[in-house]
Amino acid sequence: MDSVRIREAKEGDCGNILRLIRELAEYEKFSNQVKISEEALKADGFRENPFYHCLVAEIFPGPGEPQGPCVVAYGIYYFIYSTWKGRNVYLEDIYVKPEYRGQGIGSKIIKKVAEVALDKGCSQFRLAVLNWNKRAMDLYKALGAQDLTEAEGWHSFCFEGEAMRELAGK
Amino acid sequence: MDSVRIREAKEGDCGNILRLIRELAEYEKFSNQVKISEEALKADGFRENPFYHCLVAEIFPGPGEPQGPCVVAYGIYYFIYSTWKGRNVYLEDIYVKPEYRGQGIGSKIIKKVAEVALDKGCSQFRLAVLNWNKRAMDLYKALGAQDLTEAEGWHSFCFEGEAMRELAGK
Repeated sequence: MDSVRIREAKEGDCGNILRLIRELAEYEKFSNQVKISEEALKADGFRENPFYHCLVAEIFPGPGEPQGPCVVAYGIYYFIYSTWKGRNVYLEDIYVKPEYRGQGIGSKIIKKVAEVALDKGCSQFRLAVLNWNKRAMDLYKALGAQDLTEAEGWHSFCFEGEAMRELAGK
Repeated sequence: MDSVRIREAKEGDCGNILRLIRELAEYEKFSNQVKISEEALKADGFRENPFYHCLVAEIFPGPGEPQGPCVVAYGIYYFIYSTWKGRNVYLEDIYVKPEYRGQGIGSKIIKKVAEVALDKGCSQFRLAVLNWNKRAMDLYKALGAQDLTEAEGWHSFCFEGEAMRELAGK
């Protein structure tokens, strides 16, 4: 098996990350929703006070294989705030290219996020998953996560576009 | 009617805000979950690079009424990041004391958050609500929000406590 390394993303990874963001949105059947650009990802994640943090999984091919290291998965997270518990982490996206699934790469990314969260004094880390994505839900549950929508009834609401402009009177 | 003002919270409001956080958790039937202290709210919201922002609604009593202005509602929000749309706002908490409901104070706070969100270049603002809190769900829908759990099937997951420490191998 090729060797895998989980590392912090660099600005130069943004092109690869954007390709993976698009693949994930396609898998989730929301590819028409992706409006972000490589430039925005660079500006928002790699300046002072970044809006997000990103981990990537890189595969190093075996000896004799022609191509160089290749980014096959990513996780994007940021810090949020709970009025019950204080600082928390939110894992916005996690995605592993289909041909690299089943090797524990997703779990490695999740474990790394949990490490960062504990190091930063967070007591929780949260994420959202689509109810038909049984493979992902089963993985998160197997790793010890609780489904708060099922257990407590939390629904996610969103104001967007015209609704938001009308609210703001603009 | 007494007059209402929505304003940014100051550090000196944290005692009142904590009392309202506890009232909201009690209303949501999760009062045992509140572990935050007034000191943590001060440190996390009123230093450089705060973890959250807070609006409060203050009531000014009519002439001849003895007490001074009184904080009767709050909203706590922070900036999050969507890999589809970029910068967004998340409204973590919104609460109006029961005896001041029905006067549009909650809507005023939501409108102010939408203004801030647009000013900061955000295209969405999100929040979570419990499925039995019909009054709140109806208000958000009437103001133009979409229920993403209902419409798209998003479930909220959470790693916490022992599960998180095990993940991180600590």
